[in-house]
Amino acid sequence: MTLTGNMLIGPHAICGSREAIRAINPATDQPLEPAYPGGTAEQVEQACALAWAAFDGYRETPLGARAEFLEAIADEIEALGDELIERAMAETGLPLPRIQGERGRTCQQLRTFARTVRAGEWLDVRVDLAQPQRQPLPRADLRQRQVPLGPVAVFGASNFPLAFSVAGGDTASALAAGCPVIVKAHGAHPGTSELVGRAVARAVKKCDLPEGVFSLLFGSGREVGIALVCDPRIKAVGFTGSRSGGIALCKAAQARPEPIPVYAEMSSINPVFLFPAALQTRGEGLAQGFVASLTQGAGQFCTNPGLVIARQGPALDDFIATAAGLVHRSPAQTMLTPGIFNAYQQGVGALAENAHAQRVVTGQTGTGPNQGQAHLFVTRAQDFLADQHLQAEMFGAASLIVQCANDEEIRQVTEHLEGQLTATLHLDDADLDQARALLPTLERKAGRLLVNGWPTGVEVCDAMVHGGPFPATSDPRTTSVGTAAILRFLRPVCYQDFPDTLLPAALKHSNPLQLRRLLDGQREA
Amino acid sequence: MTLTGNMLIGPHAICGSREAIRAINPATDQPLEPAYPGGTAEQVEQACALAWAAFDGYRETPLGARAEFLEAIADEIEALGDELIERAMAETGLPLPRIQGERGRTCQQLRTFARTVRAGEWLDVRVDLAQPQRQPLPRADLRQRQVPLGPVAVFGASNFPLAFSVAGGDTASALAAGCPVIVKAHGAHPGTSELVGRAVARAVKKCDLPEGVFSLLFGSGREVGIALVCDPRIKAVGFTGSRSGGIALCKAAQARPEPIPVYAEMSSINPVFLFPAALQTRGEGLAQGFVASLTQGAGQFCTNPGLVIARQGPALDDFIATAAGLVHRSPAQTMLTPGIFNAYQQGVGALAENAHAQRVVTGQTGTGPNQGQAHLFVTRAQDFLADQHLQAEMFGAASLIVQCANDEEIRQVTEHLEGQLTATLHLDDADLDQARALLPTLERKAGRLLVNGWPTGVEVCDAMVHGGPFPATSDPRTTSVGTAAILRFLRPVCYQDFPDTLLPAALKHSNPLQLRRLLDGQREA
Repeated sequence: MTLTGNMLIGPHAICGSREAIRAINPATDQPLEPAYPGGTAEQVEQACALAWAAFDGYRETPLGARAEFLEAIADEIEALGDELIERAMAETGLPLPRIQGERGRTCQQLRTFARTVRAGEWLDVRVDLAQPQRQPLPRADLRQRQVPLGPVAVFGASNFPLAFSVAGGDTASALAAGCPVIVKAHGAHPGTSELVGRAVARAVKKCDLPEGVFSLLFGSGREVGIALVCDPRIKAVGFTGSRSGGIALCKAAQARPEPIPVYAEMSSINPVFLFPAALQTRGEGLAQGFVASLTQGAGQFCTNPGLVIARQGPALDDFIATAAGLVHRSPAQTMLTPGIFNAYQQGVGALAENAHAQRVVTGQTGTGPNQGQAHLFVTRAQDFLADQHLQAEMFGAASLIVQCANDEEIRQVTEHLEGQLTATLHLDDADLDQARALLPTLERKAGRLLVNGWPTGVEVCDAMVHGGPFPATSDPRTTSVGTAAILRFLRPVCYQDFPDTLLPAALKHSNPLQLRRLLDGQREA
Repeated sequence: MTLTGNMLIGPHAICGSREAIRAINPATDQPLEPAYPGGTAEQVEQACALAWAAFDGYRETPLGARAEFLEAIADEIEALGDELIERAMAETGLPLPRIQGERGRTCQQLRTFARTVRAGEWLDVRVDLAQPQRQPLPRADLRQRQVPLGPVAVFGASNFPLAFSVAGGDTASALAAGCPVIVKAHGAHPGTSELVGRAVARAVKKCDLPEGVFSLLFGSGREVGIALVCDPRIKAVGFTGSRSGGIALCKAAQARPEPIPVYAEMSSINPVFLFPAALQTRGEGLAQGFVASLTQGAGQFCTNPGLVIARQGPALDDFIATAAGLVHRSPAQTMLTPGIFNAYQQGVGALAENAHAQRVVTGQTGTGPNQGQAHLFVTRAQDFLADQHLQAEMFGAASLIVQCANDEEIRQVTEHLEGQLTATLHLDDADLDQARALLPTLERKAGRLLVNGWPTGVEVCDAMVHGGPFPATSDPRTTSVGTAAILRFLRPVCYQDFPDTLLPAALKHSNPLQLRRLLDGQREA
C-alpha cells in the first residue's frame, strides 16, 4: 500500500491545500514521505456535513451490525500487517514489541467495545409502566433509553499512535455509542493515521454503513481543530494531549452558541506513596519497580510516576540511593517528537534551576537526536507546598521525591495535590491504618487508586477509570479507557405513552433485545 | 413557628448584613414580613468551609442511614403543617390544592430517592477479577464504584417553591449522591425557604450527621450566587431558572481555576405536533386539552406547550377557533412575582408587535396586580423559519401556532427548533408513518417525547427525563427530575489490587451490600 498524503472525507481521498505537515523520524530527525497538506475550512465543513447526514442512519443500526463494524475495523487493522508496524515505529521512535503490543491492545479494545455494544447495558433501559387507576392522578407509561449525542471530533494522542489515535479508545467508544467520528490526526504520525484511517474506511464500506460515519483530517496549527470543535454539527470532543491544548478546546466548545462537552485528558503526575513498613522491608524492590515504571517508553505515559511521597529517614535514603543507581545506569531513549523532547528538556531544566528542588541523578546520555535521559529530583514537603511549579508535569522519565518530616506533612502534601489520573500506595499490613487515613483524600484527588503496583499499564476492561479531577481531565465524571468510556457520548430520552409500533426496539413491550431493564424499580433477571 | 429572617450556616441561624430581600404577595403587591438580609462573602465562605468539613464523613454514611435522612427531611416538612402551605401560597399566589399537591410531590420525591439510595444501582459497581496467569501480562484486580463529587450549590426555582426549591429535586438528588448542599434561596419565597431549610436542619440533627451537610443562604443580586459557584470547595451546581441566569452561572463555573459542572434547566417552548388524522377526528378534544395544559398554573411551567405545529387547513382552523374560544373565556391568574409578570407582559407585547405573528385572542383580564392573561398567536412556517425571535420562551400562558403548508414545512420547522425539554405528538393510527418520519429529528431535539398527552406534569420516576439539548438545559446528558438525577453528582473511582480490608463496602469481595455487580462482564442476578 502506498501512502498518499490524502485526507479521508467519508470514503473520498481528498488532498488538503494548506501548509503540509510531515512526519519526522525522531531517531534521525529526518522527515518522512509523503507530505500531508492541511485541510481547509471547506473540507472541515464537508466532513461535518457528511457526518451529520450519516448520523440518523448510523445511530439506529442494530446492535449486532454496529458490533460487527467495530470487529471489522480490528480485522482491517490487523490486515495492514508489517507496513503499519514499520511506519508507526519510524514515526514515533517506539520499539517493535511496544508497537506490536499496542496494535494488539487497539484491536482488543475494538472487540471489547463490540461485546459491550451487543450486551446493551449502556442503553440503561428504564421502564415505568402505566398506572391508569392511580390516585389522585394516573401515571403514564414512561420508558427511557440512551441515544448518541451526535458526530464526535477526536484528537489523536502523540504517545499512543494506535491505541489512542485514529481508531483508538475515543473513536471506538464514540462509534460504539452510535456517533459518527471525525478524527483530526496527530501531526506526529500522519502516515500511521492514514493507514489506520483507510482501514476504518474499508470497514465502513464492508459493513455497508453511511459513508459519513468516519472521516480523517490533517492540519497543522489549530485551524482545522478549532473549526471542527466549533462546527454546529459536532456534539462532543475527545482529546488526549497537553493541558494548554485541552483547555483551548474546552474554551472553544464553551463559546459556541450551543456549548458541547469536551473530554480532554491532559496532565497528571501520578503520586506514589511509600508507607514506612513497605519501605523498610522491601525498599530495594520498590526502587526497582519504580525505576522500571518511570523509564518505560521513555516515560511518555499519562500515568508515569512523576511524584513519590514518603517519610524521610534511613529507609527512604536507601530507596533514593538504589533508585539513583538504577536511573544513573538507565539508557537514554528516543522520544516521540522533537517538540516533546524539547518540552521535556525545558521542564527538567526548569526544575534543575528551581531552588525548591535538587537533582539527585541523571541517566545515560544517548547518541543521535531527541534522546531523553531519565532524571530524579528530591524536595522537602515544605518546599513542595510553597511552590506550585513543583506540580508541573514533565512529560518524560523524570520524577520528584517529596521527603516528609511526619505524617502531618504527608497529609498536607496530599491535600495540596492537583487532580490526578492515579495515586499509588505501597504498603504492608503494618501500614494499613495510615493508608486508610489517607484514602478519603486520595479518592477526591484521583480516578484510579492502586495498591502495591505501578500506575503505568492501563487495562481495557469494565472497571477501569482513566480519568480524574481537573487538570487530569476536563470531566472527572468520565473515563477515557475501558467500556465505561461509551457513556461519554450518550444522553437519555424518555418516551411517554408511545404505541409499541413507534418505540425503538430497546423499549418495546416484548423486550426483543432481551435487555435487563429497570422495570418498575426492579432490575430484570 | 416564627419566621426569623435568618440564614442557616449548618445548624447556626445567622443574620446576613447585606441588602435585604422581602417576599411580595403577588396577589396584593404587599411586602411580607420578615426581611431577609443578604449574606456576605464571609458567610458564603463559612457555609462552604462547613460543607467541605462535612463531606468526607457524609459521603461514607451507610446507604440505610442516608436514606433515613432523606425520609426524615420529608417527615419534618410534613410536620410543618399549615404554616408552610399558607406561607407558600402568600409568597407565590399559587392556589391551595397546587401547594398541597406540590408538598406531597416534594416529600414523595425525597422518599423515592431514599429507595434509590438503598437499592444502590447508582453505585454502578464493576468488578474485573485478577487473572494472574494471563499471557502476555497478568491482569490486576480492578473494581469501580461511583463516589460523590463534593459540596453542591443549589439555586431554587421560582415556580416550584417546594418541589424545585430548598428541599426539591436538585437538593434531594445531591444529598442522595452523598454531597453536602448549600442552597441559595430564591428571592421570591424566602419565608417558605426558611421553613423548609429549618426542617432540613432538624433532620440533619435528628440523624446525627455532620452539621455542614446543609446550609441555606439568602442574597439579593448575584453576590452570593456567584461567590458560591466560584468557591473552590463547591464541585457542582444545580439551577432552574432563566436562560441568562443559567448561562451566567455556566460562565462563572467554567472560568474557575478548576471548572465544575453546572446543571442548569433554562428555557423550552415544548412543541406540540397535531397530525392530520388526529386533528380531523378529535380536534375539539385536542383544543380542550391544549388550553387546559396551556393555562394550568398561569402557564408557569418549564414544560408549558408554547408552540403548536400542524398543517394548515379547515381542521386546523377549527382547532384554532375552539382553542380561541376557550382562551378567550379563561380567567386571568395571579403570576408568581411582579418580575415574572412584567417579563411575561414584555414577551407577549413583543410578539404582538412582531409582523411575523398575529394575535388570535387574549384571555380575560383580572382585578388586582400581576394578573396574567392567556394569549394565543399564529404564524406561518416561513415566517417562523425567518425569525428566531419566534422561538423565545414567554414564561406564562402564551402559545404560538405554526401553520405549515405541507409536510416538508413541518420537517423544516422541526429541524429549525432549538433544544427542548419535551416534544408532543398527537396522532391516530393513520398518522403513524408521518410521526415515524419525524422521530429521529425529535429525538435530537428533546429529552422527553409524548404521544397523545400534554407535557405539563412531570412524573418523578426512574424513566423520567426532564432535560434536553441546549438551551433547554446546559447538559443534555442529564435529567433534573426522576431518580437518574442522582447520576449528575457522581464520578467513578477504580481500586486496583486493594486488600479487602481497605475496600469500601460496595466493592468488598463478599459483596455485603448485595449489589448486582457487573462481574467479569456479566451482570449478577
